[in-house]
Amino acid sequence: MLLSIGDVKGAPMRISELSRRSGVSVATIKYYLREGVLPPGEPTSSNQASYGHGHIRRLRLIRALIEIGGLSLATVRDALAATEDEHLPLHDAFGAVMHGLDDPDAIVAHDDTLGEVHDWLAERDWTIAPDAPAPRRLAELIGILRDFGLPVTADSFSTAADTAEVVANDEVRYAREQPDRIAAVEMMLVGTVVYERALATVRRLALEAASARIEATVVERSEP
Amino acid sequence: MLLSIGDVKGAPMRISELSRRSGVSVATIKYYLREGVLPPGEPTSSNQASYGHGHIRRLRLIRALIEIGGLSLATVRDALAATEDEHLPLHDAFGAVMHGLDDPDAIVAHDDTLGEVHDWLAERDWTIAPDAPAPRRLAELIGILRDFGLPVTADSFSTAADTAEVVANDEVRYAREQPDRIAAVEMMLVGTVVYERALATVRRLALEAASARIEATVVERSEP
Repeated sequence: MLLSIGDVKGAPMRISELSRRSGVSVATIKYYLREGVLPPGEPTSSNQASYGHGHIRRLRLIRALIEIGGLSLATVRDALAATEDEHLPLHDAFGAVMHGLDDPDAIVAHDDTLGEVHDWLAERDWTIAPDAPAPRRLAELIGILRDFGLPVTADSFSTAADTAEVVANDEVRYAREQPDRIAAVEMMLVGTVVYERALATVRRLALEAASARIEATVVERSEP
Repeated sequence: MLLSIGDVKGAPMRISELSRRSGVSVATIKYYLREGVLPPGEPTSSNQASYGHGHIRRLRLIRALIEIGGLSLATVRDALAATEDEHLPLHDAFGAVMHGLDDPDAIVAHDDTLGEVHDWLAERDWTIAPDAPAPRRLAELIGILRDFGLPVTADSFSTAADTAEVVANDEVRYAREQPDRIAAVEMMLVGTVVYERALATVRRLALEAASARIEATVVERSEP
C-alpha cells in the first residue's frame, strides 16, 4: 500500500472526486483497482475508501502510458510492479520499469548487429543491464534500416547519443530529487514515454517542413 | 497496379519465393493482398501471379510499420493509399502518408498549448499543413508533461528541432532520389517510423547508463 493517502497534497477524497480531478471515469478507476495498476485507497468504511494526490498522479501516468506509449494494461502493471519493492535500489527500480516497457520476445536481432551495438555501448562506456531489451531492439532496427539499403551502423547514432547523454543525466537527477521513490520511478516513466513521443513528433514536423521547403525549390526551378 | 513487376530487380517470382525471400508466410501475404496493402502481382495464369522486388520491399515496409511502429493494418492501408495517386506532388504524398501515421481523433490538446506550438512553428518558419496531426500531438504532450509538474514549453524542444532540421533535410533529399515515387514514399515512412524508434531506443540506453553512473556515485559516497 505504498501509494497511500500519506502521500496526500490537500485533503483525502472519495472515488467520485478522484474521478472528477483525474478526468478518469469511476468505472475505469474501479477497473484499474481490480487489475492492480492503481493501489487501493485507505478504507474509511466497509464499502468506501479515501484517495490521495498520489492516486491522481498514478491515474495520469497510467493514461499517459496507455494512450501515448501505446502500452497494454498488462505491460503497465508489470512495469509498475517494480515501484512496490522498497528494498530495491532506485537504479534497479528504474531499470525494471524501463525494461518492462519493451517486449523482449518481439525483438528479432541478428548476432552480428547485436555485437556491433554491444561494442558501441562499450566504447561509450554505457553500462546497460544484460536483461535490458534496448540493445537488442537497436540491433533489430539497424538491421531493418540496412534491409532498406540505408548505410546505417551503430555509430550512426553517436551524435544522437551525445545529445541524449546530456539530457539523460539531468532527467535522472530530476527524477531522483522527487519527494518519494514512487514519484521518482513515475517521473522516469513519464520522462521516457512522453518525452520520446514528443521528440518523435518534433522530428515529424521537421520532416514535413523540410519536404515543403524542398518541394518549393523544385517547383520554382521547373517554372519558366 | 503501380507496384508491378516492372519494378523488378532480378527475375519475377512466385508467391512461394516471395514468402521465402521476405520471411512473411504465404498465408499472411495472401491476407495482405486481400486487404489491399500489398498490390497484386502480374497474373501468369488463372490462379498464379508473379511478383517483383517492389513486393519484397513493400512486405518489409508493412512488417516494419506494424511491428516497429505499432500501427494497425487499417492505418497502414490508409497511409499507403497516398502512394497510389501518381498526380499528387511528392510533398503532398509525403504529407498524406506521414499524417496517416497518427490518429487525430485520439489527440486531446488544449487551445492555449496549441497556440504556443503554432507560434513556435511560425518562429521557426516551419510550414506545416493545417490537417497535420503533429502540432496538436505536440501540444497534448506538452500539456501532459506540465500536468506532471515539468516546466516544459514549446521552446524546450528548440535544440531537438535544430538537430532534427539538419537530418530531415538530408532524409527528404535521400527519399526524393529514390528510383520511383513509391520507393520515395516508402523510404519516408521507413525513415520516420524506424528511425524515431531507434532514436527513442538510444534515449532509453542513455537514461539507463546515466542512472547507473549516478547510482554508483551515491553508493560510493554512502560507503565509509
